[in-house]
Amino acid sequence: MTSTPAPFTAGDYQARMERAARAAADAGLAGVLVAPGPDLVWLTGYAPTAITERLTLLVLAAGQDPVLVVPTLEAPDAEKAAGAPALTLRDWTDGKDPYAATAPLLDAAGRFGVSDNAWAMHLLGLQGRLPGTSYVSLTEALPMLRAVKDAAELERLAAAGAAADDTYEKILDVPFAGRRESDVAGDLADLLRQFGHSQVDFTVVGSGPNGANPHHEAGERVIEHGDMVVLDFGGLKHGYGSDTSRTVHVGEPDAEEQRVHDVVREAQEAAFLAVRPGIACQDVDRVARAHITEAGYGDRFIHRTGHGIGVTTHEPPYMVEGEERPLVPGMCFSVEPGVYLPGRFGVRIEDIVTVTEDGGRRFNNTRRELAVVH
Amino acid sequence: MTSTPAPFTAGDYQARMERAARAAADAGLAGVLVAPGPDLVWLTGYAPTAITERLTLLVLAAGQDPVLVVPTLEAPDAEKAAGAPALTLRDWTDGKDPYAATAPLLDAAGRFGVSDNAWAMHLLGLQGRLPGTSYVSLTEALPMLRAVKDAAELERLAAAGAAADDTYEKILDVPFAGRRESDVAGDLADLLRQFGHSQVDFTVVGSGPNGANPHHEAGERVIEHGDMVVLDFGGLKHGYGSDTSRTVHVGEPDAEEQRVHDVVREAQEAAFLAVRPGIACQDVDRVARAHITEAGYGDRFIHRTGHGIGVTTHEPPYMVEGEERPLVPGMCFSVEPGVYLPGRFGVRIEDIVTVTEDGGRRFNNTRRELAVVH
Repeated sequence: MTSTPAPFTAGDYQARMERAARAAADAGLAGVLVAPGPDLVWLTGYAPTAITERLTLLVLAAGQDPVLVVPTLEAPDAEKAAGAPALTLRDWTDGKDPYAATAPLLDAAGRFGVSDNAWAMHLLGLQGRLPGTSYVSLTEALPMLRAVKDAAELERLAAAGAAADDTYEKILDVPFAGRRESDVAGDLADLLRQFGHSQVDFTVVGSGPNGANPHHEAGERVIEHGDMVVLDFGGLKHGYGSDTSRTVHVGEPDAEEQRVHDVVREAQEAAFLAVRPGIACQDVDRVARAHITEAGYGDRFIHRTGHGIGVTTHEPPYMVEGEERPLVPGMCFSVEPGVYLPGRFGVRIEDIVTVTEDGGRRFNNTRRELAVVH
Repeated sequence: MTSTPAPFTAGDYQARMERAARAAADAGLAGVLVAPGPDLVWLTGYAPTAITERLTLLVLAAGQDPVLVVPTLEAPDAEKAAGAPALTLRDWTDGKDPYAATAPLLDAAGRFGVSDNAWAMHLLGLQGRLPGTSYVSLTEALPMLRAVKDAAELERLAAAGAAADDTYEKILDVPFAGRRESDVAGDLADLLRQFGHSQVDFTVVGSGPNGANPHHEAGERVIEHGDMVVLDFGGLKHGYGSDTSRTVHVGEPDAEEQRVHDVVREAQEAAFLAVRPGIACQDVDRVARAHITEAGYGDRFIHRTGHGIGVTTHEPPYMVEGEERPLVPGMCFSVEPGVYLPGRFGVRIEDIVTVTEDGGRRFNNTRRELAVVH
């Protein structure tokens, strides 16, 4: 049905590394230090088979070729990465000091951006080795480094969103009443894989009172007739993320259930319509929150409105009060207000949205009205 | 066949937290800061459903009750952890500064141990908020915090080792020649699960030249008659790890293959026999390395001899040159020398070994002689 996108080339990764080094220089940094994880995948295509206490670190600095510091026994794997031709490997052997091997690559008085998820032990190792250096997290220093997606990335995110939509359409046909949440969660995971996901990150099925805990995953509770059920699922397809939520009802909802769902749906729509280049991220949150507050549920909307998505299902930019950075065309993030009534039920509705010159464009396009399941 | 061990209680976790706080005080630290991951699982039984940029941090300090700082929307999950009754939750809400919420719990001039894998962004957040504090990684400050296992932990590690042994016995009966490495790896994973593993961490199948890369996992290569095949597999059962390696041969080995295998097997045996309380970790490595060097393959043994195991499959103590700490009864670690001949084949033999008053005791007890498969 959908074709596999062309793989990213060494040239693509080289361009990303150059962009990162340039962005670092523009931000007054001596360079960027990238640990295994999404930043490294995005910049080089390399993901070690396991993230361990052994230091792997990509060093990017303006006017210097990219160097990947790797443990000797992982070097053969690193050499196979699609981005490897665009960088130099420098390996270090068990028993040697990896920070000593890294230090000559760094300006000893420089300030560096470092991956959010770099291990504290490695940061402490560098701080100890080079006391004149200082560090700032990449999210703080260069929060928008991966935030603006290019055409090839948007194509992948659209495909992941379409697969999540196909999953939702199919889940409406499975039985809910009398089955455990974890059974429906298993169906969601199977469907995501069937529609091309290589990785399933989460399959939330929050029925009845469990739906009132926004981070409930899926448990042993048997779903009953009359339950509201929050569904929130996603993962990676062709290396890029999906993440969508719909709330369904087993049988016909009562008036209050319908009303709460309407409030959340209208808030989600209003926040989506607010998306356009130049407005602050926090404004997307404010629009959703204002609508829910006006309806009397402000204190029951207990999380931010959204988060970015790309090579992960959860990354900057965040649609949250205090995030004043402006939306830029190519950004992709969730818009997912919710209302949570403790001990009773929850409602959340979520689409992935990208910013275009003309406003928002949704990558999730299934019906947002309250669906009745059985 | 094997019974499920009794779950750890809030009292067990309380005792571990007290032990950690006491160890920190003894090491001159103001406390211990524990991020999600194995340290937090070991200390509290709590594993967030996902590790994200939202700060979750356990603060342990002598003379102070344990406090777990958690994002508000993850608090309901944290409350369900087995160790939760032994600590106080302090939640913080999206949009607020989590470091400001944590700071009042810390001695503003203190030195703290911090989980190796805490995110750099969180360490930088604390360093920025409390410039008078200093930090050291837990592996450096308290490397032996989780290293000495109690009876309940040894029981679980023995059970995980027995399940890995059952897996090895069964894999000897599957066909190798004509199947892809990834097929045999799938068999290993299925068997580990069949024998009670809830999580499979790795299933290395390194056939022929792929065996010469110690970190090769399992690929598309079709295994041939005449191949040496390195098998290295493990994961978690009842929350504790297994990790064993055997090298098998498809059909009869030639003289050199047999000789290299003998060298590694003798080195592994010698290193195992060296295990006893009081010798340095590095001595285990030295014994294995001396044997292999004497046989002429010293430069082809390109990794350390072992690593600890517990709630992870890879942790301190490390059997590596430079690690001068002594072995203590209750420690558990791998003994896994290897020889790697680039472009040709590799051999690795690995058991999990625990230290007793009388010497080493293996948790893996399958035959170490070169097995012929088909």
